[in-house]
Amino acid sequence: MTKIRVGVLGARGRVGSQVVGAVEAAADLDLVAAVDAGDALEELTAGKAEVVVDFTHPDVVMDNLRFLTGNGIHAVVGTSGFDQDRLDTVAGWLEGRPELGVLIAPNFALGAVLAMRFAQQAARFYESAEVVELHHNRKADAPSGTAAHTARLIAQARAEAGLGPGPDATTSELDGARGAEVDGVRVHSVRLPGLVAHEEILFGAEGETLTIRHDSMDRSSFLPGVLLAVRSLAGRPGLTVGLEHLLDL
Amino acid sequence: MTKIRVGVLGARGRVGSQVVGAVEAAADLDLVAAVDAGDALEELTAGKAEVVVDFTHPDVVMDNLRFLTGNGIHAVVGTSGFDQDRLDTVAGWLEGRPELGVLIAPNFALGAVLAMRFAQQAARFYESAEVVELHHNRKADAPSGTAAHTARLIAQARAEAGLGPGPDATTSELDGARGAEVDGVRVHSVRLPGLVAHEEILFGAEGETLTIRHDSMDRSSFLPGVLLAVRSLAGRPGLTVGLEHLLDL
Amino acid sequence: MTKIRVGVLGARGRVGSQVVGAVEAAADLDLVAAVDAGDALEELTAGKAEVVVDFTHPDVVMDNLRFLTGNGIHAVVGTSGFDQDRLDTVAGWLEGRPELGVLIAPNFALGAVLAMRFAQQAARFYESAEVVELHHNRKADAPSGTAAHTARLIAQARAEAGLGPGPDATTSELDGARGAEVDGVRVHSVRLPGLVAHEEILFGAEGETLTIRHDSMDRSSFLPGVLLAVRSLAGRPGLTVGLEHLLDL
Amino acid sequence: MTKIRVGVLGARGRVGSQVVGAVEAAADLDLVAAVDAGDALEELTAGKAEVVVDFTHPDVVMDNLRFLTGNGIHAVVGTSGFDQDRLDTVAGWLEGRPELGVLIAPNFALGAVLAMRFAQQAARFYESAEVVELHHNRKADAPSGTAAHTARLIAQARAEAGLGPGPDATTSELDGARGAEVDGVRVHSVRLPGLVAHEEILFGAEGETLTIRHDSMDRSSFLPGVLLAVRSLAGRPGLTVGLEHLLDL
Repeated sequence: MTKIRVGVLGARGRVGSQVVGAVEAAADLDLVAAVDAGDALEELTAGKAEVVVDFTHPDVVMDNLRFLTGNGIHAVVGTSGFDQDRLDTVAGWLEGRPELGVLIAPNFALGAVLAMRFAQQAARFYESAEVVELHHNRKADAPSGTAAHTARLIAQARAEAGLGPGPDATTSELDGARGAEVDGVRVHSVRLPGLVAHEEILFGAEGETLTIRHDSMDRSSFLPGVLLAVRSLAGRPGLTVGLEHLLDL
Repeated sequence: MTKIRVGVLGARGRVGSQVVGAVEAAADLDLVAAVDAGDALEELTAGKAEVVVDFTHPDVVMDNLRFLTGNGIHAVVGTSGFDQDRLDTVAGWLEGRPELGVLIAPNFALGAVLAMRFAQQAARFYESAEVVELHHNRKADAPSGTAAHTARLIAQARAEAGLGPGPDATTSELDGARGAEVDGVRVHSVRLPGLVAHEEILFGAEGETLTIRHDSMDRSSFLPGVLLAVRSLAGRPGLTVGLEHLLDL
Repeated sequence: MTKIRVGVLGARGRVGSQVVGAVEAAADLDLVAAVDAGDALEELTAGKAEVVVDFTHPDVVMDNLRFLTGNGIHAVVGTSGFDQDRLDTVAGWLEGRPELGVLIAPNFALGAVLAMRFAQQAARFYESAEVVELHHNRKADAPSGTAAHTARLIAQARAEAGLGPGPDATTSELDGARGAEVDGVRVHSVRLPGLVAHEEILFGAEGETLTIRHDSMDRSSFLPGVLLAVRSLAGRPGLTVGLEHLLDL
Repeated sequence: MTKIRVGVLGARGRVGSQVVGAVEAAADLDLVAAVDAGDALEELTAGKAEVVVDFTHPDVVMDNLRFLTGNGIHAVVGTSGFDQDRLDTVAGWLEGRPELGVLIAPNFALGAVLAMRFAQQAARFYESAEVVELHHNRKADAPSGTAAHTARLIAQARAEAGLGPGPDATTSELDGARGAEVDGVRVHSVRLPGLVAHEEILFGAEGETLTIRHDSMDRSSFLPGVLLAVRSLAGRPGLTVGLEHLLDL
């Protein structure tokens, strides 16, 4: 078996160092360069990297991507801070390189991505949907970005299917009991020490409910998604935004 | 085995008729009178009822209780509408009758009663607690009375243990996301067709969570509690308010 | 809006009578015939039924289908007892009738069908999967047919993705603790009074789990699936086996 | 406030080092000695420790306890390997020292202890109970010791209440589907990567279920129980086996 030659950018960071370990542990991947601030990007070309994983910083990720696309290296990017301008710029760099792929994803946890996808698929079959997300008590925002995004996807799928608001007979409510409303979908945020990051999506129709739950127990939960991206990016040229597009669901 | 002689008041009502069926089906109970509006209360004494179950109406329940206590018959009461005045009146009727027992309970679902009791017991061991209740979409109030009551019990147990508010780092909240606050305990209300009546009490501390969940799948869930009350009331003289006092926890 | 003209076969049966009620309640459907044993099938043609729902008996369902296909009426069939021979016969009746559709489905609960479909989709992304099904204590078989079928779908998806058995370090097992094995996927059957019909499919990978749960609280949970079939069958000619094919997932 | 003076034995071990950190972080506790193999036990007396926590090894724990009891120091012991002989020996050392307390506990996770206690309390009110425990896939034994112990406690409470086996209509079982039997209570063991240590105890009666669930997300989950023991041991002289006895439930 020919191994895929992988480089890591941000290799000494909290996330990047876990990627380094996971690449080293994978039988079908070969770690050829582990680069961080202060190292030369040329280590990646010297190591003949075919795919590079970038968990760095918004300040440097565009320079990294210009280098990678300029040298014909696929990129898997978990660094944040991409707006439409930046996406357009990256797409421009990919023009005339029909074989080259860049994946930019805000969330590499496969379970979170699958849960959102299934929620989208299920939404039009149910009269109502609500989202409950549960996180440790050090989280600053409520609801979580993932839960808000899930609610918007559900709302969109409902709208496309011609569904109006779910039935709700509440006439007497203690302020906040029914949660926050995101595009008409109720979202509830539980905060407790001991929790990590959990999301539950509930659908209800006459006589039955369907629940999709994702439990992230550990920060390492993004690793399987990163490795899946590394392995499938060669067959997916162009700019891809969001891991879900690599899952062939 | 001597069977307990049981009468039912409100015997043709939605709830009472199920009590009739359950008493008939129980090997240790003997249904001696099934009385409803228009029938004479004397059927109960004629049948030599030892215990009578009353699921009737606030308008008639006091007359029923005066008759029962006056005739030395124990009473298990699920009818609503008891304020302190009414309770004092019933207690007065019991004076000078040291062998007689009356139980008045708002909730006969054993699981709901146990869940509340366990929540009270667990509360002082955890930094934080939250309540999620889930009901069908035809429910008018949010949160449910049971969930609000549970939150108050938790708040009281926390206060007695000297615990302040649970830690919460939320600085950015979409209105309602963190639920309603009942005596400082967050309560979240989910409403979906397909659900019946469910309550989940979550406790969190470093590295662990404890969850107590009660699922009421069917209206018949109050029956085991009613039968337990019928069987244990003879040994519990005086006025008892709340099924939890009969559980010897 | 032109309403769809619907007939029901087995209209006075436990299931059929609920279908009758649901069709009558639906604004876009028109109940034109409610037929049961002893009634003439010609009531369906007299009523100009476009679609007929059949919840009858294996002994009569083939006669019903010959009549329906012979008269150009679409059929939604929940009656059991279809083997390959019967399916081939029905397919034969549909030859030369390119506009006509017959759906035969063992399970009309949308949530059960979606849960199985999502389980199939998720299976190849996870190292391990197990199924827990929970039913009332009057159920004779363990595991349930749905859970066994789900396990086989997961096993097939894993095999297609080249996944071997999930990792399991168990060296000391009390007989039965690890459940039953269905094509290498572990299935656990819980039986408790109070439960109705529930299935939970759990997937695990490093640091995360994904859970898909279906709760059937009431026998009426098959109705939304039947109505969906009635509404979409006109656009789905030929013989279709399994509701999942009508969901366009 | 006078702080409690605490020593730690096994202070550089995986568990002990976490205890050291937790004692240092607690405002009401004062770490006066952190002792490990090679250090002198006299550091504990020199530091005037009032309570010592021992997470060491079966080979040395008895020597440690002889030293502690001989010097009038309370002991909180999480080290394993205590049989009746050892317990008798420790009880002997405590004779004539009516003020001194020793707690020996196999499990300091408060949630696990509470879950077991609540299971015991609930058992006699339900027709049936089953236990599902879920662990990471590196676990060697199935069921877990905690789950087996929980099942035995439930069986004992059922027997004391005169309850026979729960109703079970299973006539056709795929081998293992109904789990393992521990004193007549069914226990199911799920093993998945991504899980940590979870236990779910389910009770069922007509129309309702009660579920008690403990999730241990992190090894640090034993710390709150250790600190609770340190704080309450002064008021609990003699030998105590099991954290549950300190909880005053």
